[in-house]
Amino acid sequence: MRPKPLSGFPEFLPSGRIVEQAVLDSLRSTFELHGFASIETRAVETMESLTRKGEITKEVYVVRRLHAAEGDVAELGLHYDLTVPFARYVLENAGHLAFPFRRYQIQKAWRGERPQEGRYREFCQADIDIVGENTLAAHHDVEVVLVMLEALEKLHTDLGVPPVVMHVNNRKLAEGFYRGLGIDDHLEVLQRVDKLDKIGPDAVRRLLVDEVGLTVQAADKCLELATIRTDDLSFVERVRALGVQHELLDEGLDALAEVVSAARAAVPGRLVADLKIARGLDYYTGTVYETEMAGLESLGSICSGGRYDALATDGKRTWPGVGISLGVSRIVAPLVARGELAASRSVPSCVLVAVDSEETRGAAMATAARLRARGIPTEVAPKADRFGKQIRYADRRGIPYVWFTGDEGDSVKDIRSGEQVPADAATWEAPDADLRPTVGQATTSPEAAST
Amino acid sequence: MRPKPLSGFPEFLPSGRIVEQAVLDSLRSTFELHGFASIETRAVETMESLTRKGEITKEVYVVRRLHAAEGDVAELGLHYDLTVPFARYVLENAGHLAFPFRRYQIQKAWRGERPQEGRYREFCQADIDIVGENTLAAHHDVEVVLVMLEALEKLHTDLGVPPVVMHVNNRKLAEGFYRGLGIDDHLEVLQRVDKLDKIGPDAVRRLLVDEVGLTVQAADKCLELATIRTDDLSFVERVRALGVQHELLDEGLDALAEVVSAARAAVPGRLVADLKIARGLDYYTGTVYETEMAGLESLGSICSGGRYDALATDGKRTWPGVGISLGVSRIVAPLVARGELAASRSVPSCVLVAVDSEETRGAAMATAARLRARGIPTEVAPKADRFGKQIRYADRRGIPYVWFTGDEGDSVKDIRSGEQVPADAATWEAPDADLRPTVGQATTSPEAAST
Repeated sequence: MRPKPLSGFPEFLPSGRIVEQAVLDSLRSTFELHGFASIETRAVETMESLTRKGEITKEVYVVRRLHAAEGDVAELGLHYDLTVPFARYVLENAGHLAFPFRRYQIQKAWRGERPQEGRYREFCQADIDIVGENTLAAHHDVEVVLVMLEALEKLHTDLGVPPVVMHVNNRKLAEGFYRGLGIDDHLEVLQRVDKLDKIGPDAVRRLLVDEVGLTVQAADKCLELATIRTDDLSFVERVRALGVQHELLDEGLDALAEVVSAARAAVPGRLVADLKIARGLDYYTGTVYETEMAGLESLGSICSGGRYDALATDGKRTWPGVGISLGVSRIVAPLVARGELAASRSVPSCVLVAVDSEETRGAAMATAARLRARGIPTEVAPKADRFGKQIRYADRRGIPYVWFTGDEGDSVKDIRSGEQVPADAATWEAPDADLRPTVGQATTSPEAAST
Repeated sequence: MRPKPLSGFPEFLPSGRIVEQAVLDSLRSTFELHGFASIETRAVETMESLTRKGEITKEVYVVRRLHAAEGDVAELGLHYDLTVPFARYVLENAGHLAFPFRRYQIQKAWRGERPQEGRYREFCQADIDIVGENTLAAHHDVEVVLVMLEALEKLHTDLGVPPVVMHVNNRKLAEGFYRGLGIDDHLEVLQRVDKLDKIGPDAVRRLLVDEVGLTVQAADKCLELATIRTDDLSFVERVRALGVQHELLDEGLDALAEVVSAARAAVPGRLVADLKIARGLDYYTGTVYETEMAGLESLGSICSGGRYDALATDGKRTWPGVGISLGVSRIVAPLVARGELAASRSVPSCVLVAVDSEETRGAAMATAARLRARGIPTEVAPKADRFGKQIRYADRRGIPYVWFTGDEGDSVKDIRSGEQVPADAATWEAPDADLRPTVGQATTSPEAAST
């Protein structure tokens, strides 16, 4: 009779949800401090707009009314990311938006993929994007990195989420380098170099020579470029040392150097120039980002994005953009399931007001109202049990304080220490650390999360 | 080329979204102050669990993978409320939850209904429920009313949402009354009395006499009962005056009197005992709630719920519950579209730091970082335009302050008054009213919201 979880549709128990809420609140706070406006788009898009990028088609969830009537609108599907809906939103509302438009969007998305740790059929993403009308300055490529790194660093320092390393490259850098080597179809090369981690340098060299027709020397230079990875500006010299010249290469090097310097100053140690990062083949046109989280490397990139010259276009106008997308479920669900992140309790309540007898429930409710009026989350014991049982009710939920009302005055008991002191509901303050559930690296046993 | 909105899937422009966020934040704050824990359930349920209540079947959105593989799990549908998913969540996780379990849930739901104002195909609901294991004390029926009324009152006083009147009845009251009249099948009567508003008393009387076989006298008593509506305890006497006796009637009267007294004390003027409220026929078993919002009466009930003796059951155990569900989209989307609620600006930013020239962008970014470090949402001008243009950038978005950095020290301009004063990014404070966008009754023109 007990329903089974659906594989790929993770749900949290209340304490896991508190962890997720803390992460989402923190992200929102950082994004809003940087002036990003929130939008939410509907869960569905037309199948036409979802399948424009052909390859993703198979993973889309189609949605239709059980008894669809004739004349119903075209088929709909659940969005599989927040970029396609955002592009449609920009096109639809361009006349009402002020550009450059800075938005964040924290929502669920759905993909019919095979579920595994960190990869779900329903998952939460947090995206920031800046989109311009016809033009968008290059400094925004730096800005979105800094905002997302600040957000991730805050998750690390405030909540105990592991630290990250963001890997950044610029598509112009590789393209300019290949062109400087006399290669016409740079995508042919990129496509094969992208396999470096999977098949190794020897196999890639063979592909470049046999399939693309490069000389061994040129192939080796492409491979050398891809192995350059530095956390400072030294990548520029190492590229220069390969002796290739091209205007586009210079442009890419300058742009990447800007990102690296700014990130080094703002969030030291969290970003590297990594010249093998490609992020697919024809979507991004400038800066590209990927991010690994310490201890979760096996999950792949937890936060990716880049610059696109045409996020949207209506034929006359074009909206270039740059953005980064954080896989919230990808990090939170595994960290909660592994027991590495936990909440200090499973309910918001800081205080449980004990009830002497059902006749005095009204007095207990009044006491609770006085505490709440001063911002202290409070509930009233559901039953006038003996006090030991009421304390156990609080203990099971992690509620730190039990409040007793009495003719000789009220008192409050910290049930962790057992200490009980006289208290007045009009003035008592909960210690800051107890007022709301806190989230941090777990010290107790993990909580089940169905995945 | 411009995509058209999908009818029934409302989306907000950024300033409308700020209104919605303010409403959701306020609701969350109230629910958590009362110790309700947040949960989120997946968007999909099995069709089996969605169609258990037969009548709703036609409105469900079915979900399937575009290229579903053989052996895929049974068909899925988008949930059409938050009660069915919550019941399933309780059954699935009963072993990990502490009962009575108090949860709130703020999520989208989907119904394939014909769209109209206040009624959408995708909409946001905010539910609170308290569920017990095998038993649940009656005082929780009072509690959920008080919590929801407090939440609605906070929306009214803090954000300018119109005030409400909640109509409460108790199913036992009517059932006991009918039984006291010697009627066996009370649902037969309830069903017809429920049509009172639509077809009027004469038609209902005819139905009760012709179809149910009541005497005219008994039918009249049923009609009289249904017209009783008081904002104090006088409904008890008015029912007693009808001269009907039954144990269940006494029980219902007592329970309803409890709710009315408590609400009268806590949130005067917002609740009435209304003995014609039925809320469907066989779902609820005790207290039932419906709510009208001033000026939005045409939308029907914006907040409804009640007591159910078996929210869930696994054959051995039963989980009774009581809960109320607020239609967030139902109130926010019309109020924003009509221009009755608005945000003071369309972005979170309180300050725009002006940029002298692209060479000094770094200094502007450093100033912005200092302001953000003290919690002031700040963005940097996207282009080193002449200052008039940068001020216009702020003005278009409603950003109240523009910050100028200079060799002789910084200054900040309130672009509404034009006043410009020397300022230091390490100490300057924004007035509380300007720090974040505020939400209130609109003074400017309405914002479009696609419905």
